[in-house]
Amino acid sequence: MPQRRPVDLAKCYKLLTHGPVTLVTSAHQGQRNIMAASWAMPLDFDPPKLTVVIDANTLTRKLVDASGEFALQIPTRAIARETLAVGSVSGVEGDKFARFGIDTFAAQHIAAPLVHGCVGWLECRVIADASRRYDLFIAEVLAAYADDDVFSDGRWHFPADPLRRTMHYMAGGEFFATGESFRAD
Amino acid sequence: MPQRRPVDLAKCYKLLTHGPVTLVTSAHQGQRNIMAASWAMPLDFDPPKLTVVIDANTLTRKLVDASGEFALQIPTRAIARETLAVGSVSGVEGDKFARFGIDTFAAQHIAAPLVHGCVGWLECRVIADASRRYDLFIAEVLAAYADDDVFSDGRWHFPADPLRRTMHYMAGGEFFATGESFRAD
Repeated sequence: MPQRRPVDLAKCYKLLTHGPVTLVTSAHQGQRNIMAASWAMPLDFDPPKLTVVIDANTLTRKLVDASGEFALQIPTRAIARETLAVGSVSGVEGDKFARFGIDTFAAQHIAAPLVHGCVGWLECRVIADASRRYDLFIAEVLAAYADDDVFSDGRWHFPADPLRRTMHYMAGGEFFATGESFRAD
Repeated sequence: MPQRRPVDLAKCYKLLTHGPVTLVTSAHQGQRNIMAASWAMPLDFDPPKLTVVIDANTLTRKLVDASGEFALQIPTRAIARETLAVGSVSGVEGDKFARFGIDTFAAQHIAAPLVHGCVGWLECRVIADASRRYDLFIAEVLAAYADDDVFSDGRWHFPADPLRRTMHYMAGGEFFATGESFRAD
């Protein structure tokens, strides 16, 4: 069984550098939500920061604006269908966790729930003075974790099981799997 | 032979949504440079905008600050070695195009050269009022192109040749290939 382990904050950018699709969870005063986000990337090393685009017309935006927090996490192909689903409908139509059978567990530093079936998790606090003009959130990473069968010692090392790999969103319900690794030097 | 075709600006975000490693080229007053960037992503649809992190201590930063322009382009595995090389040394040590044998062609709207061996190209103008505090550049896309054997009608469709695929940077000289596509619905 994979074990979820803390990731050294100075290396947590490596969870995102390869550009996987992510899930954003948020919570405020008993309301919670989950959405998919492909437009997310690391921004700085230490203290670790990242950016993510959260459209102004989403429930996630409302909850992140109210709480100043969110979790960014990296799903595997095993939950590709759920990833697509939560990226396709709004949380204002009802709780997407219940609707799509998404299990969660508690974060340590924020109220947003963390999603089972992911392999990397980043607990984030919005940096208040960042520009909102472009729906671009800049946040500091408070804590990071990864499943040790796919990420340890600051690097990804996917096992043979294709369902344990991360993925990259294309369009129209289609993803790319994270492919084979190779050295270029 | 693949043909380079214009990409509809309203769809050019699809060149970047899957999170590939990119090459950033820049030029100002006869000096030019090239670097690799993994921390790049789309920001908006129409007019198309994107963001990229360009460290303050780089020659690229100096040229982009001076010119207000850059090109962001998407290399294939065929030039993985060159991608790694230009991301590993600074242009202040000498012209990296000559040193690593990188061929270019002229852009249409900006002075920065475009790189042969890429499959997608985005000519960008920096939006001056964006936050520089985090080395985060926000730019508008002025023009986009892609090779029609890998991208057309707003979607990627990689051929069998593994060297024509895009790639995702991990760390330490190691990349992931963009893997097989699959539907999640």
